[in-house]
Amino acid sequence: MEIKPIDRLSVATIRSLLIDMINKSNSGHPGMALDITPAMYVLFKNHLVADPKNPNWINRDRFVLSSGHTCALLYSMLHVSGYKVTMDDLKNFRQLHSKTPGHPEVGWTDGVDASAGPLGQGIGQAVGMAMAESAIEASYPNGSEIMNHYTYCLCGDGCLEEGISQEVISFAGLQKFNKLILIYDENVSTLDGPTSNSMNDDVAMRFKSVHWNVIDVPNGEDMAAIDDAIVEAKKSVDAPTVIILHTKIGYGTALEGKNKCHGSPLGKEIGDAAKANYGFNEPEFTVSQEVYDNMAANFGARGAKAYAAYVEAKAAWDKANPEAAETLANAFARNVAPYIAKLDEVALDANNATRNVSGNCVSKVVASIPFTLGGSADVAASVKTEIKGDPGFGPATRNARNVNYGIREFGMATINNGILLHGGFITYGGSFLVFADYFKNAIRMAAIQNLPEIFLLSHDSVAVGEDGPTHEPIEQLAALRTTPNVRVYRPCDSRETVASWKCALEEKSHVSCLILSRQNLPLNENSSEAGVRCGGYTVLENKDANVELIAAGSEVGLAVAVKPLLEEKGYKVKIVSMPCCEIFDEQDASYKASVLNLPRAQRVAIEMAHGATWYKYADHVISYDKYGVSAPASKAIEAIGFTADKVAARILDELK
Amino acid sequence: MEIKPIDRLSVATIRSLLIDMINKSNSGHPGMALDITPAMYVLFKNHLVADPKNPNWINRDRFVLSSGHTCALLYSMLHVSGYKVTMDDLKNFRQLHSKTPGHPEVGWTDGVDASAGPLGQGIGQAVGMAMAESAIEASYPNGSEIMNHYTYCLCGDGCLEEGISQEVISFAGLQKFNKLILIYDENVSTLDGPTSNSMNDDVAMRFKSVHWNVIDVPNGEDMAAIDDAIVEAKKSVDAPTVIILHTKIGYGTALEGKNKCHGSPLGKEIGDAAKANYGFNEPEFTVSQEVYDNMAANFGARGAKAYAAYVEAKAAWDKANPEAAETLANAFARNVAPYIAKLDEVALDANNATRNVSGNCVSKVVASIPFTLGGSADVAASVKTEIKGDPGFGPATRNARNVNYGIREFGMATINNGILLHGGFITYGGSFLVFADYFKNAIRMAAIQNLPEIFLLSHDSVAVGEDGPTHEPIEQLAALRTTPNVRVYRPCDSRETVASWKCALEEKSHVSCLILSRQNLPLNENSSEAGVRCGGYTVLENKDANVELIAAGSEVGLAVAVKPLLEEKGYKVKIVSMPCCEIFDEQDASYKASVLNLPRAQRVAIEMAHGATWYKYADHVISYDKYGVSAPASKAIEAIGFTADKVAARILDELK
Repeated sequence: MEIKPIDRLSVATIRSLLIDMINKSNSGHPGMALDITPAMYVLFKNHLVADPKNPNWINRDRFVLSSGHTCALLYSMLHVSGYKVTMDDLKNFRQLHSKTPGHPEVGWTDGVDASAGPLGQGIGQAVGMAMAESAIEASYPNGSEIMNHYTYCLCGDGCLEEGISQEVISFAGLQKFNKLILIYDENVSTLDGPTSNSMNDDVAMRFKSVHWNVIDVPNGEDMAAIDDAIVEAKKSVDAPTVIILHTKIGYGTALEGKNKCHGSPLGKEIGDAAKANYGFNEPEFTVSQEVYDNMAANFGARGAKAYAAYVEAKAAWDKANPEAAETLANAFARNVAPYIAKLDEVALDANNATRNVSGNCVSKVVASIPFTLGGSADVAASVKTEIKGDPGFGPATRNARNVNYGIREFGMATINNGILLHGGFITYGGSFLVFADYFKNAIRMAAIQNLPEIFLLSHDSVAVGEDGPTHEPIEQLAALRTTPNVRVYRPCDSRETVASWKCALEEKSHVSCLILSRQNLPLNENSSEAGVRCGGYTVLENKDANVELIAAGSEVGLAVAVKPLLEEKGYKVKIVSMPCCEIFDEQDASYKASVLNLPRAQRVAIEMAHGATWYKYADHVISYDKYGVSAPASKAIEAIGFTADKVAARILDELK
Repeated sequence: MEIKPIDRLSVATIRSLLIDMINKSNSGHPGMALDITPAMYVLFKNHLVADPKNPNWINRDRFVLSSGHTCALLYSMLHVSGYKVTMDDLKNFRQLHSKTPGHPEVGWTDGVDASAGPLGQGIGQAVGMAMAESAIEASYPNGSEIMNHYTYCLCGDGCLEEGISQEVISFAGLQKFNKLILIYDENVSTLDGPTSNSMNDDVAMRFKSVHWNVIDVPNGEDMAAIDDAIVEAKKSVDAPTVIILHTKIGYGTALEGKNKCHGSPLGKEIGDAAKANYGFNEPEFTVSQEVYDNMAANFGARGAKAYAAYVEAKAAWDKANPEAAETLANAFARNVAPYIAKLDEVALDANNATRNVSGNCVSKVVASIPFTLGGSADVAASVKTEIKGDPGFGPATRNARNVNYGIREFGMATINNGILLHGGFITYGGSFLVFADYFKNAIRMAAIQNLPEIFLLSHDSVAVGEDGPTHEPIEQLAALRTTPNVRVYRPCDSRETVASWKCALEEKSHVSCLILSRQNLPLNENSSEAGVRCGGYTVLENKDANVELIAAGSEVGLAVAVKPLLEEKGYKVKIVSMPCCEIFDEQDASYKASVLNLPRAQRVAIEMAHGATWYKYADHVISYDKYGVSAPASKAIEAIGFTADKVAARILDELK
């Protein structure tokens, strides 16, 4: 790359824009945004293939800003590159409902491929995108004609200090995702001071230890070297590449090299001086036509040409591969209609663990959908996530469907988020419910991005037994049920499990968590898919009832066992199964009143977990709010007071 | 080390014991336990300095079994080494209330220095122990006379695949904890299959990249090589050491090298064959006297001698350093009585952010306690965790008090857990509330181990403002409040903040989470420390009230602002501040009824977060159960309906 005056002007313009944005909003993070501007510019000008007029083109290069706090730079870049981010949008940085919120929000701003903010997860999302790309290419006939792009990701020190980064770079190295290019901005500063206060990793060696291709760019201002590095990275055939870019935070400002410019506006004085230092002496929010023209002639023209060529090639491919074309369309639309009826063929066992029933759904139905990718964090045999006979996704088997994510729950979730952001697959990830703690924020990031992620979370209560308190979930159900956009299904039997899978597969915008038992649960004769679709419903009607038992999962069977014990004492009992509180809450008032139709004081919720969230539905809550015990399941359940006898006694005491 | 028949017999005995334990309980994890037995034996026989008769001796070597699922080995080892783990205890492996639960539980079984189970965290806890050791040694006169021990940790593939491992090994490398020795069992198998399915890290290079000393032991059966490796590791002067031990899972059994033996009992047939293969042909649960004698003559005698020498040296040190001796005693007893009164000197600002008030508590009171270690995950300036003038803990400043944990929330929490397990310090760790998600399971592990951890969690609501939804907590309060043994304090003003700090410092067995505001909050004229100590209390009494408003944190001030608007409509209003629901729940019924004394239907809880947990106290909950928005705080609050006007309108609507 020969550096011309227009390149310097463009970089200076973008830097000035982001300084103005942050100053105007009096909020934002100029430091790193300024030092990575040249790299971002070179990437957009010379490499990134995307078409602002078709921002959701499935074969565009993906770009993930893992250091989401530097988004003022991304918005400036999108603006000069022709995306629907106007000058007014830039002036409304971080203002209510603007197209330029404080961290990137996918689906809200054209050109933003992933939401970001919580550090490290962007790398995982990028790994997922690269994985989806490679899997689509390998899964369709002449796949490279329809899917063949790079995934770029930009991160800083924070992303690499977070442990999640190690999980996903290790996975990406093993998987040899050669079209994944990570640009690491080593600006030797974090919010609290010099990075050396908290990290002295030999980052190149760290990446080499997980088999990445490493390219060092000693000077982040050297656009030719950056360009060479990206050219070189794109040539990698068997490893992802990290480009280590050495920069100075707040480049060109009076605060260069100082952590003070990380998270605070520069202010007018320092900002103006910096702009002058960049050779930019225009009024605020100025972009000259030649800068727009430069981006249009390079980034814009390249993307438009590539998009047009793709449309043509895709039409030919569709014609040559009509069946595959239909599958691909279904895959990107998440259209499961052609496959979902098969779920009705799953056996409704009279007494089985819901994890096993879920396993049957995986092996009989998920296996029949040609566009799924899923697995578990090394608990496939326990959570029953495996499609039998599948070789496992790997560098030589990129059309395989089972994924061994390793003992990396957080990594698994962020990678699946990336796959869904990319599009083309339904994903699922299995773990023990208690370890939802390890990837809680990735569940949140799925939910905040409206990704229809599916998590299979088994071993759902103290009935885990021998593994003891560290493995027995107590508060996890409450944590998931209170996370917006998450639907927590805790099915009580085979029928509800199959129905939950159906809902999860059909889902377009909510996270689905299927909470599965380790132990066998009896089939309830009145359970129903229609009931699950209402969130909660009556499974044992009693028009004369004066007590309403509300339960989920294994406690529905418990409620059935408790009923005669209460009847012995003269109570008349009705039982409600509540597999999904969030869906129940969305029903209309009359439906809700038809299910919970006794006064609150006559309602009793039963769950072998923390009970706090059940008071929404009942005055009386029979729950277990402490840590569990290590013992065989039946002994553990008895020890914590969840036998039918003990629960009945507690209910009688409550109702007194 | 010259290998003698007794060494082989001891190893065979221990292996046979653990096979018997797992077979008898029909539950457990024999695979890795068997392959690391020689290493565990060499460590205990020749190196570990501890006295079974004084298992809580503060200067003992620490041993953390990060791969907690292999605890059958640890219990066998403790048994033959003279700890209070009887043969009956071994026979009751994983049974209710036995001394040998399914994963190690600290405080329950002598010789268990840390609870374990959730993978990776054991390494973090060991790092914390090594840190505490080095900090005590550096902080007291002639500190090495009272504190001078090693910390050993044993882990497997799972621990290293988890990202948390990277956070803490990076920190330990930077900090040069040379007395930390990690034994990594590379048995090339995980639960789901060969490790190569999910990980091909060059582990030696990975550790070198974070400046560890690496020693490779090619054959895990070679006890002489293991001994040499530990001898060598103990000589390290400026780096922690990892010993990479190459083994075969399920060594010596018919399932050697197969993942099938990871988590399932071997059964009698395979077990008996394995025992014969080890040259051990005794009945089940047999330990010959010579094995006990061997351990007593080596491990036992070494520990007893060291303990006796320590008692003598410590007495002399106490005499020479009476003031330091008192401080040390207070430190290990967590006796804050001599310091706590200073909290009353913290200014009660009429209008200040509670994060700032907390910062004042840190700089004025925490700074005066000579045995604290704390800091933040790179948000010191935002969460106000810094003691001014402190140089920051580092290899050359091990008597410093501020810790830069880096952008490693999970690492921070596990390290602090390790420091508390070790004893000698009060710890605190700061982050944004929303990122409690990143270390939720470490909060749980603190709580499950009854560690009086203090977490400072600021930016506690949508009032975060410009950073937007990824940075705005919604469900985190519910997640923390439902975690057993955790006390969540959400103070409404300066006075409640100081009181919360007081409670947290005095705490002996619960985790304290102080939830702090970014924005200013007004001082409530009736707020009180006594009230905080009851969890909830009336801050605005009204004997004629027909509406009870219940709130916490910033919403107490909001309730005060809402009151006149309700009064305009004829309501008579009382206000309850509920800074800590968990403490309130523990009060006696009469106190609770005196605070919440109207019928549920006349109670309204207000919180700018998910409301699910508030229905325990009120029929009406004014909450915000969706994701937030990016905008300046006042605009964001208005957008989500939390101005006094809008809240009043919602309440009037609810009460209709």
